[in-house]
Amino acid sequence: MDNRPRILILNGPNLNLLGEREPEIYGTEDMDIILRRTGKLCPDAHLSFRQTNHEGDLIDLLHDAWRGGEYVGVVLNAGAYAHTSLALADAIAGIKIPVVEVHMSNTAAREPIRQKSLIAPVCRGTITGFGADSYRLAINALLYTLEDK
Amino acid sequence: MDNRPRILILNGPNLNLLGEREPEIYGTEDMDIILRRTGKLCPDAHLSFRQTNHEGDLIDLLHDAWRGGEYVGVVLNAGAYAHTSLALADAIAGIKIPVVEVHMSNTAAREPIRQKSLIAPVCRGTITGFGADSYRLAINALLYTLEDK
Amino acid sequence: MDNRPRILILNGPNLNLLGEREPEIYGTEDMDIILRRTGKLCPDAHLSFRQTNHEGDLIDLLHDAWRGGEYVGVVLNAGAYAHTSLALADAIAGIKIPVVEVHMSNTAAREPIRQKSLIAPVCRGTITGFGADSYRLAINALLYTLEDK
Amino acid sequence: MDNRPRILILNGPNLNLLGEREPEIYGTEDMDIILRRTGKLCPDAHLSFRQTNHEGDLIDLLHDAWRGGEYVGVVLNAGAYAHTSLALADAIAGIKIPVVEVHMSNTAAREPIRQKSLIAPVCRGTITGFGADSYRLAINALLYTLEDK
Amino acid sequence: MDNRPRILILNGPNLNLLGEREPEIYGTEDMDIILRRTGKLCPDAHLSFRQTNHEGDLIDLLHDAWRGGEYVGVVLNAGAYAHTSLALADAIAGIKIPVVEVHMSNTAAREPIRQKSLIAPVCRGTITGFGADSYRLAINALLYTLEDK
Amino acid sequence: MDNRPRILILNGPNLNLLGEREPEIYGTEDMDIILRRTGKLCPDAHLSFRQTNHEGDLIDLLHDAWRGGEYVGVVLNAGAYAHTSLALADAIAGIKIPVVEVHMSNTAAREPIRQKSLIAPVCRGTITGFGADSYRLAINALLYTLEDK
Amino acid sequence: MDNRPRILILNGPNLNLLGEREPEIYGTEDMDIILRRTGKLCPDAHLSFRQTNHEGDLIDLLHDAWRGGEYVGVVLNAGAYAHTSLALADAIAGIKIPVVEVHMSNTAAREPIRQKSLIAPVCRGTITGFGADSYRLAINALLYTLEDK
Amino acid sequence: MDNRPRILILNGPNLNLLGEREPEIYGTEDMDIILRRTGKLCPDAHLSFRQTNHEGDLIDLLHDAWRGGEYVGVVLNAGAYAHTSLALADAIAGIKIPVVEVHMSNTAAREPIRQKSLIAPVCRGTITGFGADSYRLAINALLYTLEDK
Amino acid sequence: MDNRPRILILNGPNLNLLGEREPEIYGTEDMDIILRRTGKLCPDAHLSFRQTNHEGDLIDLLHDAWRGGEYVGVVLNAGAYAHTSLALADAIAGIKIPVVEVHMSNTAAREPIRQKSLIAPVCRGTITGFGADSYRLAINALLYTLEDK
Amino acid sequence: MDNRPRILILNGPNLNLLGEREPEIYGTEDMDIILRRTGKLCPDAHLSFRQTNHEGDLIDLLHDAWRGGEYVGVVLNAGAYAHTSLALADAIAGIKIPVVEVHMSNTAAREPIRQKSLIAPVCRGTITGFGADSYRLAINALLYTLEDK
Amino acid sequence: MDNRPRILILNGPNLNLLGEREPEIYGTEDMDIILRRTGKLCPDAHLSFRQTNHEGDLIDLLHDAWRGGEYVGVVLNAGAYAHTSLALADAIAGIKIPVVEVHMSNTAAREPIRQKSLIAPVCRGTITGFGADSYRLAINALLYTLEDK
Amino acid sequence: MDNRPRILILNGPNLNLLGEREPEIYGTEDMDIILRRTGKLCPDAHLSFRQTNHEGDLIDLLHDAWRGGEYVGVVLNAGAYAHTSLALADAIAGIKIPVVEVHMSNTAAREPIRQKSLIAPVCRGTITGFGADSYRLAINALLYTLEDK
Repeated sequence: MDNRPRILILNGPNLNLLGEREPEIYGTEDMDIILRRTGKLCPDAHLSFRQTNHEGDLIDLLHDAWRGGEYVGVVLNAGAYAHTSLALADAIAGIKIPVVEVHMSNTAAREPIRQKSLIAPVCRGTITGFGADSYRLAINALLYTLEDK
Repeated sequence: MDNRPRILILNGPNLNLLGEREPEIYGTEDMDIILRRTGKLCPDAHLSFRQTNHEGDLIDLLHDAWRGGEYVGVVLNAGAYAHTSLALADAIAGIKIPVVEVHMSNTAAREPIRQKSLIAPVCRGTITGFGADSYRLAINALLYTLEDK
Repeated sequence: MDNRPRILILNGPNLNLLGEREPEIYGTEDMDIILRRTGKLCPDAHLSFRQTNHEGDLIDLLHDAWRGGEYVGVVLNAGAYAHTSLALADAIAGIKIPVVEVHMSNTAAREPIRQKSLIAPVCRGTITGFGADSYRLAINALLYTLEDK
Repeated sequence: MDNRPRILILNGPNLNLLGEREPEIYGTEDMDIILRRTGKLCPDAHLSFRQTNHEGDLIDLLHDAWRGGEYVGVVLNAGAYAHTSLALADAIAGIKIPVVEVHMSNTAAREPIRQKSLIAPVCRGTITGFGADSYRLAINALLYTLEDK
Repeated sequence: MDNRPRILILNGPNLNLLGEREPEIYGTEDMDIILRRTGKLCPDAHLSFRQTNHEGDLIDLLHDAWRGGEYVGVVLNAGAYAHTSLALADAIAGIKIPVVEVHMSNTAAREPIRQKSLIAPVCRGTITGFGADSYRLAINALLYTLEDK
Repeated sequence: MDNRPRILILNGPNLNLLGEREPEIYGTEDMDIILRRTGKLCPDAHLSFRQTNHEGDLIDLLHDAWRGGEYVGVVLNAGAYAHTSLALADAIAGIKIPVVEVHMSNTAAREPIRQKSLIAPVCRGTITGFGADSYRLAINALLYTLEDK
Repeated sequence: MDNRPRILILNGPNLNLLGEREPEIYGTEDMDIILRRTGKLCPDAHLSFRQTNHEGDLIDLLHDAWRGGEYVGVVLNAGAYAHTSLALADAIAGIKIPVVEVHMSNTAAREPIRQKSLIAPVCRGTITGFGADSYRLAINALLYTLEDK
Repeated sequence: MDNRPRILILNGPNLNLLGEREPEIYGTEDMDIILRRTGKLCPDAHLSFRQTNHEGDLIDLLHDAWRGGEYVGVVLNAGAYAHTSLALADAIAGIKIPVVEVHMSNTAAREPIRQKSLIAPVCRGTITGFGADSYRLAINALLYTLEDK
Repeated sequence: MDNRPRILILNGPNLNLLGEREPEIYGTEDMDIILRRTGKLCPDAHLSFRQTNHEGDLIDLLHDAWRGGEYVGVVLNAGAYAHTSLALADAIAGIKIPVVEVHMSNTAAREPIRQKSLIAPVCRGTITGFGADSYRLAINALLYTLEDK
Repeated sequence: MDNRPRILILNGPNLNLLGEREPEIYGTEDMDIILRRTGKLCPDAHLSFRQTNHEGDLIDLLHDAWRGGEYVGVVLNAGAYAHTSLALADAIAGIKIPVVEVHMSNTAAREPIRQKSLIAPVCRGTITGFGADSYRLAINALLYTLEDK
Repeated sequence: MDNRPRILILNGPNLNLLGEREPEIYGTEDMDIILRRTGKLCPDAHLSFRQTNHEGDLIDLLHDAWRGGEYVGVVLNAGAYAHTSLALADAIAGIKIPVVEVHMSNTAAREPIRQKSLIAPVCRGTITGFGADSYRLAINALLYTLEDK
Repeated sequence: MDNRPRILILNGPNLNLLGEREPEIYGTEDMDIILRRTGKLCPDAHLSFRQTNHEGDLIDLLHDAWRGGEYVGVVLNAGAYAHTSLALADAIAGIKIPVVEVHMSNTAAREPIRQKSLIAPVCRGTITGFGADSYRLAINALLYTLEDK
């Protein structure tokens, strides 16, 4: 039986294009490779992965992650919805498990609309700019949170 | 046969969390209890209830409510989409039955982004800040509209 | 003896012109007719009516309504002062009985300056866009508040 | 019997200080002298003069000027209220006789807050910057309007 | 010999279309008719008329009007250039004869870009909203200025 | 076998209401009629049609259109999502076939929120204001692009 | 005979509610107690006290304080009118005795609309945040001004 | 005799530099080549070509195009004047033949000042981003307009 | 032994130039004279004086003033740093002794950038516009605070 | 034969008024005197002088200066057009010889609209505030540029 | 000999107050304890610690860290300077070793001025909101960067 | 003895990195080489050089430069502090010798925050965009100023 803490890695719109989409910003690896490697680099957690292009699905999945009672936290790369979805922010504020916001690119160095995240104020914390390592750091951040308790 | 006017109560994102989510803002009752009591308090109307976290579903449901020809109006708590969804506003403007916007909390007393509703200009009117009573008042508002004709 | 709860209906600037002023926005009924009919439609409350074009009078009347101890709440149509009077907002915040803001027109569909109410954040709630019915709904809102206690 | 058209010259806040207040902007003549001379220079109209520092009084006086039925129009120097009073604008929009906005100083050359008039859009027209002659021109403007009918 | 004071009536872009262009805003009379009637209504001044669609021409004509030494002042309807031409404002500030800004329509009641005039701060005064009478009033304003000296 | 280049015509929210919704803006023809006629007027292309009210579906459909390898380009009427969906812009930027943005109405002449398109910067080009002809022109634009190669 | 310099303490809207209104911001003492104690703490000045909720009254009282010739200066707590009344600023600029602006609360730490005072630029100086002591300091400030002459 | 509908292709400032100016944005072809080829690709219309760097000339040419009665419409590439010239917008609004706005580059992807067109709201429609093909599409748009009548 | 309460008078950038710098704003007395006289006028407090042009020094000095345990409060004239230094605000918020902000000039009457103080919200209160007397008033304000305890 | 590098000194609107216009800002020398002296002070360059009040002429002259092939660079005092003319900026960006922007006054110390230059980003560099010496410095700047090659 | 990669932990203004300052935001541990524990939790790196309240010192230390050649990267908690110091951003952009920005608090959930970091765009990445763990995560982020090479 | 006028060349933050930092913007020469060559190219002045990364040092050095009485003026490259330091602007305004602002890069062509200089309004003039030649031109500008006296 797997007693490791369970963490949901939730990816939002267009992250399924990774490796193909704007490689000068996001690199050439696809998301499957990144997540598989991340799983190996974080052996202390049990990871589940979900991706969707639908804002409503992200909200549903966050609700379920909390209500199901199985996850200790969520690593959320909300993509562009981080900057436009107040409903997503309400979902994060409404559930009782910590959510860590991640971005692979350095959003502060991109267009103005990407420089404000609507979800950041209700997340536990934010990690941006470390490419695929952003996921690994966010998982650690959740695990450290558990240690701190 | 039920001859009472039919009204659709349409709830948007995160309202399924009611009672659990931010109780200092929204109270501790869940939505089912609220709507059941609302039904009893408004015996002159036949109420249907729908909730969804998907912007597109709200649009589809508004189209259907009008095209089905069965409803005299809609009470819409669009949650956060009230502040970000121009597409929802277009749907309200596009259908021919009156829509009343409701919010349980006093949105004017919250963050700036919640102080402007994109859908308010195309709704029949808006009712905010009366908690669960906002629904009851909105149903009355629709019934008064029928009386006025 | 009249044991019904007493409510003050307080009308602000230019509402004495109702029926004459911009009928395409406000309708052709004058305020006396509206308030008399409202009284009949709300038999469970004892209503008093006041109108003034003076910001200072509105503040004085709110102070008196509270200090006199006779009213359970105020229905306030502050007209244009809703959008420009911080002093009025302070008066509402300073008294201890609930105030419900009403507007007959859908202010969200008018000029930008009418889309922000300075008094809304300190009112119990706001009702806009239902014409003369806005008053009737606001009186009900106050009565429901009493019920809820 | 005086058959000349009657015009109300309505002066707002601080115009009673004229001649004493900031003479480098407003000149050294007091308002009585200016209005008496204006009366002589405009023999074709019967002029009445009112001044008040109260926003509510300006609204009351505009309502009365219209309802009394005696005036063909109003020349209004609303002073600072031109820039802050939406209620005054509503009063002008609500009455059915033309109002001409005047300012003695060139408001466009002063502080930014004086560069936007809330009442200008609902006045017949605006005359600014001609000192005491602004009144004389505004009276003529009203008389020309009568001629044009 | 004509000893009357000479005034230049200077019209800017698109005013040659008057009577044809947007008659619901500007009326159906063409500019020739308006100016001819204005001349008759202002017998105390000798009027010259110029129209151009070129910003540079307006500047040249203002320079010439001053340097020629023949005009006591200019009535300037700069049309849309009033709102976009800082160079025109500099020309007005640079010459030593008074310029009165006129607009036939009530610019304050139109689009936001027309609500700020770049030239108003350097004109003697501004007259807006009186249709063809705006010209007549502006000529009077210049004549009153001469009287006042 | 049909060798004509294949183009996807992708319609966003509320375009299924066409002909019924705000006919003074969008005309009285419904979308089926428009697209059928467009097909006849553009015999050099093979057209497919899709409509959805869901932002996430639009993203999925764009991904599929590219990955399927069958389309030379997309004509996208994103409706209100053009003005609010950064995720949609990311999808367009992420796929490798050209997308042409169309609007039937002249969006520049409507409310301020419709005057900025988030997707325009990543589209090949934009065509607005020609009613049903906007589609026909966009299809031609894609075909000309092929010619130009 | 009382030869001490006379100072007018002028209180604006809602300050009559002091002690009752929002005690977490303004404390629990009422204004009478504060002013009586202030009088004792400032024996070198003769103090008069006035309070009104009317913007126009504040203007009238300022005019009178100057024209009466009896006061050496005014201590003005304009409450919310400090932030909205340009007419009040004009009154202060128009009279020839110094006015010191006071606020009991630290307005800079409150809502944005309270962070700009329209009257501050024309007052002699401003004192904010010292509770009841703000009055005492302002009286001293006026007395020091006399000393400095 | 040439019975084809006549269309004026009107080019604004710096378009005479085409092929030399910023070729990474505008390509290396000069305007003569583009227009000659456009003429061949649009055999159903008779095209006239004009270019000027003067805002006033563009206004004059639009007036003439309408008054001459010979053109069915204008294709206007106003270059930078599209973003700064309200006078040009007034000219387009004032004439009675349709004007189609074109830009060769995708202006939405350039500096903020190029993202708002002052002339777009009064043009029939806008076509941007298709390089030299923008002209061809605009001519078709005008011809389709004729067909639609 | 000196038992009087100790107060640190802390002056920021360019205040060492006083008397030489812009005397029309700041007067002709130098800071030494002002502080020496202030000391005499405030015999109930023991005053220490420090001036520095370095933002970091101001922060260090505030930390030391608190940690040293010897001062009951600080009078801080932060000069231009009041308007630009968030780090200084954090230092004030972080120490546990009250800080009173002073300015000799009326900052509200100067350039816009001087009309917002970043440190005001975390200071005990603010005193502006009384020239050298601002210091004396601030010292009194601190002493009154001690009395009030 | 004159082998010195040729530089065009191009002056924009109202600079022909120099010496007469606002001498407190621009001094009392006229432009002819300034340019003649500048010529003597810069013997290493052959200078040509042009002035025009027309935006379009400035564009034409820049095009010609480059296409004629005779000039090594342009010193451009665009006056007010520096702040309003995007078309002029495009002309500078489109030609291949360096342009140096000059202003005689310190534009940063004047009205806000003069604090942004639309042409500065595409000029080689900018020199402001040195009166007539601005020209001499700009000529040197161009000559240094040649040296640097 | 210590072969571990060397990392500089650089703390900015007021972080020396940690544990004492605003514990509800920053916790009650002081910085020494935090850094000592961080050192133990990150045994794979050799850490050096510096703190200063001076913007210029932070710049000097960054220059030295790079020029000394001994550090593989910097973990920078710039405190309030993150939001106001463009000079610090230039220093980060100017050195050739990666800098990771950290904040202990969730800056996105605080005042607006803290929601924009001037240094974020030139840092390798940013980590906010994880309290003392932010340092540990940032050290890991730098180590992962080395691994990735 | 050296009778040449003495000029202080004062360099601000990060200019010590020149040649190493962002060479695509600032070139590859280091500051020592630039200043040594500048000294040779300006034999008519005696130059002193100072560089510091500390805002407070720049202020101290400006004060000293003036009080020492030895310099006729200062050439100041304030780097990023030009855009953020109001205290520096006050120092320049406070001293009585002219300061010329220089930037090597064309700041108008960079990020928005670099497009406004807080110190420009109080400098004698500004020279931007000429690389190392900016210093040489600024020294000349100071020398011309001396000539002009």
